[in-house]
Amino acid sequence: MEIRSFTIQTLERLPYYLHYMESRETEDVSSRDLANALGLNEVQVRKDLAAVSSKAGRPRRGFERKPLIRDIREALGFGRMDEAVIVGVGHLGTALINYKGFRELGLRIVAGFDLQVEDEIWVNETPVFSSDHLKNLIPRLNVKMAILTVNSENAQAVCDELVAAGIRAIWNFSQVMLNVPDNVIVRNENMAASLAVLSEYLSTGNNK
Amino acid sequence: MEIRSFTIQTLERLPYYLHYMESRETEDVSSRDLANALGLNEVQVRKDLAAVSSKAGRPRRGFERKPLIRDIREALGFGRMDEAVIVGVGHLGTALINYKGFRELGLRIVAGFDLQVEDEIWVNETPVFSSDHLKNLIPRLNVKMAILTVNSENAQAVCDELVAAGIRAIWNFSQVMLNVPDNVIVRNENMAASLAVLSEYLSTGNNK
Repeated sequence: MEIRSFTIQTLERLPYYLHYMESRETEDVSSRDLANALGLNEVQVRKDLAAVSSKAGRPRRGFERKPLIRDIREALGFGRMDEAVIVGVGHLGTALINYKGFRELGLRIVAGFDLQVEDEIWVNETPVFSSDHLKNLIPRLNVKMAILTVNSENAQAVCDELVAAGIRAIWNFSQVMLNVPDNVIVRNENMAASLAVLSEYLSTGNNK
Repeated sequence: MEIRSFTIQTLERLPYYLHYMESRETEDVSSRDLANALGLNEVQVRKDLAAVSSKAGRPRRGFERKPLIRDIREALGFGRMDEAVIVGVGHLGTALINYKGFRELGLRIVAGFDLQVEDEIWVNETPVFSSDHLKNLIPRLNVKMAILTVNSENAQAVCDELVAAGIRAIWNFSQVMLNVPDNVIVRNENMAASLAVLSEYLSTGNNK
């Protein structure tokens, strides 16, 4: 197994670097341009790129754009296809199933589960099953990632079922801070928190 | 203007505290229970709550639940109603317009804008206009918050238009790191980064 040396913070910045570089047409890109364009610190940018790419930036010229794009895409797992199930197929769940960008990012949603569904239904090309089948189907599908878009009330109970079914990475869109064992990673998309930050800023002008 | 002393990090944890406390029925809640339930550090929890509520926790008994709920809701701006426009009414934009949770959180989406729309259309009770009208309508609506769900290619250009139209808080669902003046706040929901973190974990088991 390849040991990667970069941090989650680096990983979070990579999509921005990638997008910037893919939008250019020059042969080279300098870390200064990148830093300025993205509002980041130049030293940080250089560290991030060095962690991902063995092609060191050349003084005055910067990085060769194309090999760097390849290295970032590889670090981000493009080409590697991840599979996930989605639990809770309401408005948000449906939007995520329909979101074409995931394919590009290497994610395929192979099935959905919803409490309200009795027989199997289809959302475009994705089958959606009753949540009753979650325990049996997830191990059979051999999927390790789940997108959680259920109501707050059900979130922890569903999370427990997912973990019992072998899920090891949960993308949590519910507003609950989930309790999981140490070998399971949770990534929170907390819309309430985001909104609170924006709202607070508008009402007080407090940006820090 | 009231000066608030809590940080963005505190603000991000508040919705979790609130959800936990609203799900209890006891008269009191201790910071230890809260910390354990949410997997947080107890000292951190006490600091957060002290920043938001003048009702200090009482030794052995903890916080009175109901007044604390009131204080957190106030800190989060519940009751205060924010208005926002949404720009880019594709799958994600439509899901967000339809998302009932926003109302509860004090957000009302008053209008949408989309490049593809010629005449005004309606998504449920929200009117969606051609992006051509963005410059004129936003100042007239006197809205200061925008939700950005356009394609990466258009994100910076649309952002510039929004800022010119008076928007001061942008909730950015595009995959672009936006450049904005100092007096504008951006909150990124970077799905690509979230996915990369989960995917990376599954492929390497690297949780840090």
